[in-house]
Amino acid sequence: MAVYTEVTDEALREYLADYDLGDLVAFRGIAEGVENSNYALKTGAGDFILTLYERRVDPAELPYFLGLMEHLAAHGLPCPLPVHGRDGAALRRLAGRPAAICTFLPGVWPRRVRPEHCAPLGQALARLHAAGAGFGMARPNALGPAGWPPLLERCRATGDSVQAGLVAQLDAALAAILEAWPAPGTLPVGQIHADLFPDNVFFLDDAEHRPRVSGLIDFYFACTDLLAYDIAVCLNAWCFEADGGFNVTKARALLTAYQGVRPLSPAERAALPVLCRGAALRFLLTRLHDWTATPTGALVTRKDPLEYLRKLRFFAAVGGEAGLGL
Amino acid sequence: MAVYTEVTDEALREYLADYDLGDLVAFRGIAEGVENSNYALKTGAGDFILTLYERRVDPAELPYFLGLMEHLAAHGLPCPLPVHGRDGAALRRLAGRPAAICTFLPGVWPRRVRPEHCAPLGQALARLHAAGAGFGMARPNALGPAGWPPLLERCRATGDSVQAGLVAQLDAALAAILEAWPAPGTLPVGQIHADLFPDNVFFLDDAEHRPRVSGLIDFYFACTDLLAYDIAVCLNAWCFEADGGFNVTKARALLTAYQGVRPLSPAERAALPVLCRGAALRFLLTRLHDWTATPTGALVTRKDPLEYLRKLRFFAAVGGEAGLGL
Repeated sequence: MAVYTEVTDEALREYLADYDLGDLVAFRGIAEGVENSNYALKTGAGDFILTLYERRVDPAELPYFLGLMEHLAAHGLPCPLPVHGRDGAALRRLAGRPAAICTFLPGVWPRRVRPEHCAPLGQALARLHAAGAGFGMARPNALGPAGWPPLLERCRATGDSVQAGLVAQLDAALAAILEAWPAPGTLPVGQIHADLFPDNVFFLDDAEHRPRVSGLIDFYFACTDLLAYDIAVCLNAWCFEADGGFNVTKARALLTAYQGVRPLSPAERAALPVLCRGAALRFLLTRLHDWTATPTGALVTRKDPLEYLRKLRFFAAVGGEAGLGL
Repeated sequence: MAVYTEVTDEALREYLADYDLGDLVAFRGIAEGVENSNYALKTGAGDFILTLYERRVDPAELPYFLGLMEHLAAHGLPCPLPVHGRDGAALRRLAGRPAAICTFLPGVWPRRVRPEHCAPLGQALARLHAAGAGFGMARPNALGPAGWPPLLERCRATGDSVQAGLVAQLDAALAAILEAWPAPGTLPVGQIHADLFPDNVFFLDDAEHRPRVSGLIDFYFACTDLLAYDIAVCLNAWCFEADGGFNVTKARALLTAYQGVRPLSPAERAALPVLCRGAALRFLLTRLHDWTATPTGALVTRKDPLEYLRKLRFFAAVGGEAGLGL
């Protein structure tokens, strides 16, 4: 569910009066996305997405997110393009929230990932990294290695209620990951998406019925961090089967296509297993926190944190990069 | 939240192959509606709504609902038109559920009802009743007077947990309403919507910025019952302020516009207060049942049943039809 803030029709009309988008045709809440309120907006000028930024998003960071999308779109990436009002501003206020209108992207996100999705994904991710190179702003990764110890502290009291002994396992895993984490300056850094799960990637079939990426959305975890960490997020999010098995065919397709655009350095290749462990821990910790902190009756579906404990164990046991399909 | 059943892209493509709708362009879950899973579907042929019918809907009743929408649309009512597949069938199966595609209707439902919405609403409701006249199927109102005693029984054990003494109040209210309910044959019967709340009515402004009805949706409570009962539902759903007050200006606008299309008989006018009490009780009972039966953590927002206890009391005290704006 992703409508937390209701917008009255009067407020919407007043808001739209600041844009050159023609007449209002339709306005419907969208079920997807969990952090913000999203509406499908149709006007005389076409289809758009109107987003109201909810409490989890820091308004001070919105210029980075919107600026990055604008930069990436200008460099040919199929990502939402913020629409500017008559006064030039893309970031405005509606119903007491920061709000923005972005272009609508065609496509369908894959409910079931097939190997054929993974090469176009890898290529799109590398293009995102390449296109981000000239962007002038930076945002630290709040959910990167420096953020994991405090996140684990917030789960300490309740974590073992999910599984006995879980907190001790996470203490050990976190210490090992931080110990093995690449030293600053050893791997390329740039703008990363940091949350490129299947529901954030739209595909359309080409004339030969092969999936092609038609949209990358939801840049509200984007930050400035190790480029290869973004690959590690994707390996976590796209390459495991429902039964928990790692699908190395999918991983190889993703990595090969990525390297067709941006070859990985030897240091990046060697670091990939620990980056994957870190990414697994990051989603494990946020899911664990949400699992124990989400009030009953909330509108958000809680996601199983233990799925990522299994992924963490896989990556801890994988040995070298070859086990990941490199 | 209204996506209970996920549809894989393969299943969607296979499903669309049975239609003449061109290529798939986009497919997004819609947040609105609580009974079924609704998706915004965009194809080469335009915008559509794809609905998967969930457990609360009896598949045997779908031909009535879809047939009624088709009949009403053919008679000029702005309601969703079921799209037929290549084989002529509108009702199909997708992801293990009955499913149908209907046309997309423009417009925005009013988050805050203004008096100017109520005349177009009343006119549209009367047109719905007039257009339904020639429809050849019938469906009993499962949530009409015959359905209220068993519904109250299902709330008996838990109802007082919402408010002390509630069940006894409802027993007395139900007995009084059934006692005063119009005898069969005394009021006109026809096809009614039976759930015409603001989120089921879309409006667009005309050239003079006055709201005009552009769509009536969600016919899945429609049935064959007293036409004036549909007015009673609307008086409950549209004419109370957030502070609980009955806005007789809205009621008068609704009733006057309705009668401009279909004048009420003296018997209908006299019956309106008890029909309003019945409608208040119907929503009170279903909300009360959902309130006590909804599992914690469910995706559906529970609605306050006591809002309808206050409305029931208002209608019980209103005296004659004049108090309703007639």
